[in-house]
Amino acid sequence: MSAEEERRLARVALTWLAEPGTRAVHHLVERHGPVETLDLLLDGGSPAGWLHTTVAARSAAGDARAVAAEALERADRLGARLVTPDDEEWPAQVASLAALRLPDVSRRVDGETAPPLCFWVRGSWPLGEALDRSVAVVGARAATGYGQHVATELGYGLAERDWTVVSGGAFGIDAAAHRGALTAGGLTVAVLACGLDRPYPMGNAALFDRIAETGLLVSEWPPGAEPLRPRFLIRNRVIAAGTRGTVVVEASARSGATQTARRAIHSNRVAMVVPGPVTSAMSVGAHEFLREHSKARLVTGVAHVLEEVGRIGTDLAPLARGPQRATDALDDEARSLLEALPRRGAMGVDRLSARAGVDLRTALRKLSLLEELSMVVRRDDGYALAPPAKPKRAAAETPAST
Amino acid sequence: MSAEEERRLARVALTWLAEPGTRAVHHLVERHGPVETLDLLLDGGSPAGWLHTTVAARSAAGDARAVAAEALERADRLGARLVTPDDEEWPAQVASLAALRLPDVSRRVDGETAPPLCFWVRGSWPLGEALDRSVAVVGARAATGYGQHVATELGYGLAERDWTVVSGGAFGIDAAAHRGALTAGGLTVAVLACGLDRPYPMGNAALFDRIAETGLLVSEWPPGAEPLRPRFLIRNRVIAAGTRGTVVVEASARSGATQTARRAIHSNRVAMVVPGPVTSAMSVGAHEFLREHSKARLVTGVAHVLEEVGRIGTDLAPLARGPQRATDALDDEARSLLEALPRRGAMGVDRLSARAGVDLRTALRKLSLLEELSMVVRRDDGYALAPPAKPKRAAAETPAST
Repeated sequence: MSAEEERRLARVALTWLAEPGTRAVHHLVERHGPVETLDLLLDGGSPAGWLHTTVAARSAAGDARAVAAEALERADRLGARLVTPDDEEWPAQVASLAALRLPDVSRRVDGETAPPLCFWVRGSWPLGEALDRSVAVVGARAATGYGQHVATELGYGLAERDWTVVSGGAFGIDAAAHRGALTAGGLTVAVLACGLDRPYPMGNAALFDRIAETGLLVSEWPPGAEPLRPRFLIRNRVIAAGTRGTVVVEASARSGATQTARRAIHSNRVAMVVPGPVTSAMSVGAHEFLREHSKARLVTGVAHVLEEVGRIGTDLAPLARGPQRATDALDDEARSLLEALPRRGAMGVDRLSARAGVDLRTALRKLSLLEELSMVVRRDDGYALAPPAKPKRAAAETPAST
Repeated sequence: MSAEEERRLARVALTWLAEPGTRAVHHLVERHGPVETLDLLLDGGSPAGWLHTTVAARSAAGDARAVAAEALERADRLGARLVTPDDEEWPAQVASLAALRLPDVSRRVDGETAPPLCFWVRGSWPLGEALDRSVAVVGARAATGYGQHVATELGYGLAERDWTVVSGGAFGIDAAAHRGALTAGGLTVAVLACGLDRPYPMGNAALFDRIAETGLLVSEWPPGAEPLRPRFLIRNRVIAAGTRGTVVVEASARSGATQTARRAIHSNRVAMVVPGPVTSAMSVGAHEFLREHSKARLVTGVAHVLEEVGRIGTDLAPLARGPQRATDALDDEARSLLEALPRRGAMGVDRLSARAGVDLRTALRKLSLLEELSMVVRRDDGYALAPPAKPKRAAAETPAST
């Protein structure tokens, strides 16, 4: 076995002995390399006590290197490949996880956010290339029709503009985002929290196959690994750090989606949130996240998302604007005169100028201007608003909303 | 006529000669008092050219003092009273308008944000007292069912907690907020942009009568004054500065409601915005305001509003939380073991400890703990999750949403 194969095997063995993201293991690999780290741990030389017992417990169930070799064979049969930092397609940006520290960590899993040791990948695209220009769209599994609609639109719009749509392959928002990207004929990547041979949830199996055909299925766990609960949180750090930004579409009060957004913020990525009806339980977590994180950005569509993640000067969102009104161009006197005109009937210029607070000479000048713009009509009994047919009148007629 | 009556008459005359909020007039009144200011303007001694022509034009239509005297008589017949800074019930907080400067002023009306010279009031409450503990709830006239529901809830909830609900008496959100407050038997104030004898819109006439019975109808304009378009913007500065904060419920892209919130922010009041579906045109302005103003606060209900405007330490909103789970209390080892258990059937402690990555002795200790908490059951063939009847199982069973 070549030295390189040794290193690859060791990385696989290490992710089996200790969950991905374990800082102690990452530090050892950084210092001694994967092979030496594996030997060290197997010889019981773990720095942390809990890591020692974990390694011992896992080892009791089998030989780490043998398990790793078998995993590589299974992956081969599955048409999946192992990607490590030694490979050209390794996504460099995940290295930023080495610096990720979440505030007020209560569970150990929130503290174990080290970079991945390796990825299992199914699909033809080079992983790094696929993630280079990517945005994550994540959210509730129990999504509403509203949330699924928005997620699909985002997935479609981003893919249409050659952005890779990354998500977790779950029911609800994740699936909608993946499908939107697929519909646009774009690139989408599902980052799973289990082995690629047993994608979770099974109900999305067909979706996963479609994704693998044109995009990528990715996981840090070897074939056969189960979607144990903590693994979703461990996986979320990769979705956050592997993309330029994370968009949360719907999230209940206690949601993993906001955990991904939290990891995005603390990895100096853009965390974006789509608001929803305050009457919807599926938006409670989204709104709370916006209230708690001043760095989080409210986005209402793909234009806003592109504004956040796009290169400066490009992909800018147009500011929301109401219909431009003909009266916008008028100066204060002209507008005052227009607004002083009665809804029905005409008014003499003397009364009109008094009512508008504009002197007579100015009033006459402005009124003839308004006449040319066919906003007012001159009659024997004075001036009147132009007939309803003209759209201008509506503008002059409607008082501002409060 | 007493000196005081002279001053009151002068203030009324001044608001007829020049629209309320005119800075030049405010400065003169501050320096010379209302009576001298009136004489000065009538003698053509206006500082600004446009003010000169405005005064001249209005004077041409009648004698300012005579018009003012007639307005006072009309108000008397109407059961309305004039309130000036000389009166005890004057709301002191509107003085902050003297410092209000809006950025990038395009129309003159946006620059004329001086404090009011006087108020016309209908209703028995002292104006200052009514506005002391008040919140403004404003929004679109073309409100959706969602917006009206939220505005009614806010009006009701605030009134229920003895906060005065202030709005503009318009259709849609304004009316819903007023009605919510009335339903709670609370105090509500409608600030109008026209004379109290011809409230606009006419369709809310019945509502205005109900408000006047238990709350207040307020206007800067004398009886007979019409709801000219610019007056709504002029009025909005009073809603913003007269309250502790302004809540925008629904606002289209070009909305007067966000103009009120803008005036609130620049008057150092709290500007709050209720988000909505991004698919709704009636929320476009609300979301854009949140994106443009970092000081604006997203609120989802009365608890959040109270948190913003309430005295520090009181009226605090509870943080949105998901259901507390029994597993929250567990340490890492116990949780790992629980999560390593198969969905169905039992598992031997050796395999279990290996799968969970917990050494055997710890595993046995934690498992007996879990057994006491009736989260797991011991069987001849090992340990299993407690039967479905127990809610705990659902928690252990459901993987985190992505």
